[in-house]
Amino acid sequence: MKLAIDAMGGDHAPEAIVKGALLAVSSIKDLEITLVGDEEKISPFLNDNSAKINVLHTTEVITADDEPVRAVRKKKQASMVLMAKEVKDGRADGCISAGNTGALMSAGLFGVGRLDGVERPALSPTLPTEDGRGFLMLDVGANVDAKPSHLLQYAIIGSIYCEKVRGITSPRVGLLNVGTEDGKGSELTKKAFELMNDAPIQFIGNVESRDLLNGVADVVVTDGFTGNIALKTIEGTAMTMFSMIKSTFMSNLKTKLAAVLVKNDLKGLKSKLDYSEYGGAGLFGLSAPVIKAHGSSNERAIHSAIKQACHMIEKDVTSTIQSTLNEMKNEGGES
Amino acid sequence: MKLAIDAMGGDHAPEAIVKGALLAVSSIKDLEITLVGDEEKISPFLNDNSAKINVLHTTEVITADDEPVRAVRKKKQASMVLMAKEVKDGRADGCISAGNTGALMSAGLFGVGRLDGVERPALSPTLPTEDGRGFLMLDVGANVDAKPSHLLQYAIIGSIYCEKVRGITSPRVGLLNVGTEDGKGSELTKKAFELMNDAPIQFIGNVESRDLLNGVADVVVTDGFTGNIALKTIEGTAMTMFSMIKSTFMSNLKTKLAAVLVKNDLKGLKSKLDYSEYGGAGLFGLSAPVIKAHGSSNERAIHSAIKQACHMIEKDVTSTIQSTLNEMKNEGGES
Repeated sequence: MKLAIDAMGGDHAPEAIVKGALLAVSSIKDLEITLVGDEEKISPFLNDNSAKINVLHTTEVITADDEPVRAVRKKKQASMVLMAKEVKDGRADGCISAGNTGALMSAGLFGVGRLDGVERPALSPTLPTEDGRGFLMLDVGANVDAKPSHLLQYAIIGSIYCEKVRGITSPRVGLLNVGTEDGKGSELTKKAFELMNDAPIQFIGNVESRDLLNGVADVVVTDGFTGNIALKTIEGTAMTMFSMIKSTFMSNLKTKLAAVLVKNDLKGLKSKLDYSEYGGAGLFGLSAPVIKAHGSSNERAIHSAIKQACHMIEKDVTSTIQSTLNEMKNEGGES
Repeated sequence: MKLAIDAMGGDHAPEAIVKGALLAVSSIKDLEITLVGDEEKISPFLNDNSAKINVLHTTEVITADDEPVRAVRKKKQASMVLMAKEVKDGRADGCISAGNTGALMSAGLFGVGRLDGVERPALSPTLPTEDGRGFLMLDVGANVDAKPSHLLQYAIIGSIYCEKVRGITSPRVGLLNVGTEDGKGSELTKKAFELMNDAPIQFIGNVESRDLLNGVADVVVTDGFTGNIALKTIEGTAMTMFSMIKSTFMSNLKTKLAAVLVKNDLKGLKSKLDYSEYGGAGLFGLSAPVIKAHGSSNERAIHSAIKQACHMIEKDVTSTIQSTLNEMKNEGGES
């Protein structure tokens, strides 16, 4: 099993990336990693365990401020672009970057390529739920003008990923909508509902965003615009509440005393809501696993993202998605 | 000033509605109220201060389970339908209901009618921010398949409402989008951005949903599908966090002690996030003020909604919207 990793992407690159890779090769059997980036900056963090790690040297980098599509086209030697090329040319089975999300979507789409039958890839993070199980949401922003057929494909892809990688038998797939009743919603969701209803998944119908963190579904399907808004609303509301809780605790002597008593327990609460704990966001629908690790990833988060990519490879997620889509196409053709 | 109020809508009807109306007529000069509903159920709550309140008797009611459009068409004697008719026939200057939201949108649209130049009315609640100022979001679900021109109209309407009723000079109007940079977003938001950029408002560009509760804008414009998802995501995330905080406090003796110390302060936090405190949601773009009070409204919430409708009438919000839209139309025609 071989992974290509962009060593230069993310807030703590290359240190966190290299250290995460070292953790991974020492814990995962038969894993080889190609770190793509500036050898001079990478090598200080390599050590005796680096036998299964090789470095593909390049000094060009795509930054967070780069315009994604243009950067991928122009910076042909960028670490992220060369990383995708490792997959395209068959030298790696999957790839990971903590860099510019838009650029990774572009590098994935043009460098790695789509699966046959997938019109648009979907950015797919696993988000926290109160019970700790988490749910997969897709798409959260790869494709902001989605069609019903795209949502159907997300449903298939998400269901297969959850079953194979997260070990959930018959994952419950919901369609994010403005009401739970059948027939609710926009033109897009009404048509997607019909398609999903006929798909080889456990479709539980429409779900509302107020129930997401209660774990109302294992897979929540939505267009990239709505998914992005929902994701950032969860983040923003949680951040605002933590900030308000903090000021509440600082308001007087009594509350300050209370703060001392619950400090550690509240930290646990915060980490429970931290979705980087669930690994990176998959860019699903491509012909190989491509994982977007969180920009703020530390070595542990990189290690999780690597494990996630390895699971996808071991469990043949990509080829299962491909064969399921092929079967649906054939059935559709016969009817 | 005359208001028609659906006495039978909401979880605590008619008691909370009647009591809220009594509070209002005793505190607001020159206000007369017509309560529409079952006289037998309403009269027990009326008292000596009821001189400025009259009852329009009807026993038919639209319930929360009724299919909105059909209910408004079929139940011609329903309290909500007769309430809208009071406005249409000029016997009331505005109306309020805490009942079925979809039915009120339907009764407003078909009973009260749209302003000339408004293609679709928008459901527009004021939501809480950390600093307590709040922001107006529209639309949160009246119109799930919006066009760019609808969003432009929401921007104008929202800006005028905030200036006139909430007393904010040059309200900052933002467009809810997946990124803050110009040129971001879906086909819908890209086109709406251009229109809003040329409108007679203080347009601050794209805003992201993670900044909503920080008060990034006074008016947040979005299509009804996205707005509904954002609103319910805020609600759901806040509910889940309160539930998690509660379990955190119940986890051991130390945290239980802390809970006793901060109990009252945390209650304050909860009420700060309760958006029924900011009055009802306006159904804006109609030819008279129509307010949707929260289903769980108590008498104080009904009193707030009545004050809100009165402000809209006193400040001539409806005619200001109409004349602004007329001016834009004329300018557009000249260019």
